[in-house]
Amino acid sequence: MNIGYIGIGIMGRPMAQNLIKAGHTLFVHNRTLDKCDPLTELGASVWTTPAHVAAMSEILFINVTDTPDVEAVLFGADGVIETGKPGLIVVDNSTISPVKTKAFAARLKERQIDFLDAPVSGGDVGAQNGTLSIMVGGEKAVFEKCLPLFEVLGSKITHVGEVGLGQTCKACNQLFCALHMLACSEGIALAKKAGLDPATMVEVVSSGAGGSWALANLGPKIVAGDMAPGFMIDLLCKDLNYTVDQGKQINQELVGTALAQRLFEQARTEGYGREGTQALYRVVEDSQTGRWKHEHAEETVG
Amino acid sequence: MNIGYIGIGIMGRPMAQNLIKAGHTLFVHNRTLDKCDPLTELGASVWTTPAHVAAMSEILFINVTDTPDVEAVLFGADGVIETGKPGLIVVDNSTISPVKTKAFAARLKERQIDFLDAPVSGGDVGAQNGTLSIMVGGEKAVFEKCLPLFEVLGSKITHVGEVGLGQTCKACNQLFCALHMLACSEGIALAKKAGLDPATMVEVVSSGAGGSWALANLGPKIVAGDMAPGFMIDLLCKDLNYTVDQGKQINQELVGTALAQRLFEQARTEGYGREGTQALYRVVEDSQTGRWKHEHAEETVG
Repeated sequence: MNIGYIGIGIMGRPMAQNLIKAGHTLFVHNRTLDKCDPLTELGASVWTTPAHVAAMSEILFINVTDTPDVEAVLFGADGVIETGKPGLIVVDNSTISPVKTKAFAARLKERQIDFLDAPVSGGDVGAQNGTLSIMVGGEKAVFEKCLPLFEVLGSKITHVGEVGLGQTCKACNQLFCALHMLACSEGIALAKKAGLDPATMVEVVSSGAGGSWALANLGPKIVAGDMAPGFMIDLLCKDLNYTVDQGKQINQELVGTALAQRLFEQARTEGYGREGTQALYRVVEDSQTGRWKHEHAEETVG
Repeated sequence: MNIGYIGIGIMGRPMAQNLIKAGHTLFVHNRTLDKCDPLTELGASVWTTPAHVAAMSEILFINVTDTPDVEAVLFGADGVIETGKPGLIVVDNSTISPVKTKAFAARLKERQIDFLDAPVSGGDVGAQNGTLSIMVGGEKAVFEKCLPLFEVLGSKITHVGEVGLGQTCKACNQLFCALHMLACSEGIALAKKAGLDPATMVEVVSSGAGGSWALANLGPKIVAGDMAPGFMIDLLCKDLNYTVDQGKQINQELVGTALAQRLFEQARTEGYGREGTQALYRVVEDSQTGRWKHEHAEETVG
């Protein structure tokens, strides 16, 4: 099948690569073109604009950083909409605003272009191994057309409902990741300062009703002082904005998530944005009683 | 072995029962004496005061609700200290204050009575099946003397360090349970209000980096509206007080845990104290944007 892939980054590159390996013909584009070089070697053809890629594709994947990036790919100069023919399916693997996602889908629909939001979780390792979890929103019939491709990219594929709900599901996922990391950070800080070996605490709590993926996988990294990403704080901050924004849009107070968001933003302010999410620990460990009183008094309940 | 067990409640009864089944001679006491009846039938002898039980025991377990209850059993009228002989080992299975625990151990030590704090997790089901996780603080040699009994009661036994650190480890465990339940409540509320099937969200997120024991086990109960305990909000509130207090004592800000504590207290105020911890969801679901602004403006950052 003729497949487009726009956004050849840490996630997009191995995902496009897996599609090539599965026998598909890939047309690719990236803002920094030379990032496509490893795919050229595998037989992909590189194009200078999204419009070029869209002209060649039956199904077009997008995997870029943020909502404005997706908007530019679709509707900007030389965007997908300029050449995309009726019947084209656009699949967005980025993690972006659920609200804007619906608007994008509606605009494409006017040109008979179908759209699925299909954010992923599982990180670069999952992308490389084709073991991502993919949360797909959009029409069921369109989802089914793309399912064989999703099965190349991931091992857990879920059609979660109408367009936008893939992003909502990802927003929920990030909410859990953020609050679990806050729990890890506070638990480990408490243990450490109380004189309880934090590695022992992590091991004991992980095995019971206090356990989480974060504690089992990132807890030991915190204990070891290993803050390498994994998943960067900068990106989690971006994602949490969408989670909290969606809460506001639908009048659902998310007071815990909003607190976690502010602490991750604080970590970013302190220079830890390009570290793994477990570097939230640095902020929590430093925060002696009262530290937050003045800085966050108003926002904490916003 | 001659073993005392004081506090024949939902946890203590099956734990004492397992000790009888393992061949030990049990001397038991409970404030409401007739709760001991099922153990009498199995051959335990019931005594009217802690002092009587302590006089008969080589190792004496306590499993009562709160710090003042343990204090009364040990040092109140007809307390353990009145008859406990040098060499007696007291094992406290209650979940109480780590700080007071150290003081209790010190007072007993003056009489050559050894003390282990050994709070458990795993609930009444774990108590019945002998599959509890037991977190033990105290001297290693004393721990080793009691290990064969712990192995009757639980399947994961960990000596976590000196006296008091068992309670600290439990305090950490409860911190994780509380924050994970906050994540579950906010995630499910967000999904539901956004039109995403919450059961689908729970299933998708559980399987990945957002997963937790709470989400996998209590998430489906929230979705089904099943708020039966499990572990009651009243008890988690009590436990979280100790977690937050210990943070204050050692100057470790626990801003997330303190927020979760206030929300669980709110659930209690609203009449959900005797429901399972998953009933926190009722409070979170109801909280439309702005609800917390006035009520919690000052405390949220306390």
